Amino acid sequence: MPFINIKVTDEQVTKAQKRQLIEGATQLMVDVLNKHPKTTHVVIEEIPIDNWGVDAKQYSNSKKFKS
Amino acid sequence: MPFINIKVTDEQVTKAQKRQLIEGATQLMVDVLNKHPKTTHVVIEEIPIDNWGVDAKQYSNSKKFKS
Amino acid sequence: MPFINIKVTDEQVTKAQKRQLIEGATQLMVDVLNKHPKTTHVVIEEIPIDNWGVDAKQYSNSKKFKS
Amino acid sequence: MPFINIKVTDEQVTKAQKRQLIEGATQLMVDVLNKHPKTTHVVIEEIPIDNWGVDAKQYSNSKKFKS
Amino acid sequence: MPFINIKVTDEQVTKAQKRQLIEGATQLMVDVLNKHPKTTHVVIEEIPIDNWGVDAKQYSNSKKFKS
Amino acid sequence: MPFINIKVTDEQVTKAQKRQLIEGATQLMVDVLNKHPKTTHVVIEEIPIDNWGVDAKQYSNSKKFKS
Repeated sequence: MPFINIKVTDEQVTKAQKRQLIEGATQLMVDVLNKHPKTTHVVIEEIPIDNWGVDAKQYSNSKKFKS
Repeated sequence: MPFINIKVTDEQVTKAQKRQLIEGATQLMVDVLNKHPKTTHVVIEEIPIDNWGVDAKQYSNSKKFKS
Repeated sequence: MPFINIKVTDEQVTKAQKRQLIEGATQLMVDVLNKHPKTTHVVIEEIPIDNWGVDAKQYSNSKKFKS
Repeated sequence: MPFINIKVTDEQVTKAQKRQLIEGATQLMVDVLNKHPKTTHVVIEEIPIDNWGVDAKQYSNSKKFKS
Repeated sequence: MPFINIKVTDEQVTKAQKRQLIEGATQLMVDVLNKHPKTTHVVIEEIPIDNWGVDAKQYSNSKKFKS
Repeated sequence: MPFINIKVTDEQVTKAQKRQLIEGATQLMVDVLNKHPKTTHVVIEEIPIDNWGVDAKQYSNSKKFKS
């Protein structure tokens, strides 16, 4: 019954990358916790770069963070 | 003081349906927990169908799930 | 595919009340959005009363809020 | 290692206001908990006004709430 | 800058399993999105089995779901 | 109508510190967004140190991170 919520900055994540995130996160639950894929949900949220801050800086204004 | 967060796939949920979700979720808190509506918040998040996965499949690519 | 997260203050919510919250929230998704119960998950989180604030006051120190 | 998630109604929050929220929330973690800004993340989520309810009313239909 | 939140039922997840979840989820962000581990946070939340419902049933009362 | 969720590692945050977090986060919403304290909720979640990872390391096993 895991529920995995992935928040990333909104920087053109492709549909194929989202598929890989869903497959990989689901497989991780199978491998580590012996969970069943049918009850494993993955939700990806893309956050605008003005809306994410780290080190007290708005990501859209930061030069230090590349990923 | 409940806070209810409803995540659903983004498939044309109407304004009226959202109103019904808010009313129903709030009433549930009143009926079951005797909470006050004034301190009950409901937030609905609509998730793009590429961004939700279950059974290791992207919802937009899944035929098995209809709801 | 809804996922409903209910946060409430930790004040002796009984197992029966939790069951009612799960049944009611799931039924709401069926009634309003025509979702299937099998893919509807409900997670209840109980928050210690020192950890919830409203009106700038810690709930454990508040006399004004009764619910 | 704090992670702060701020949900607000989507009502034209400016880039400068978002910067102030990020700076203020980060500074709060430094001042109160002695955390390091480099490991403090702030994510702001803007919720459409049809999707937020309080007092069993959709925010977009509410006249009583001004903020 | 990903933030991954994993919610699972509280059923004796070991410290080693948590470590594997953290390593695997972080590696997934590196592999798929080219993110940096230093800015990737993983938070695991263990939910009591009375507090998780699926198919309108409390997990602690469900016989159909084994994982 | 802001809702602020603060996740921190569970390292003996005192009741007074939680009060300061609630006061500070609420004041931030008043100052920056002109929100009303009565509709501003703050929820603090304390995460066990085995359950938080950064840089692919379990916080409880990390020596590099001090805050």
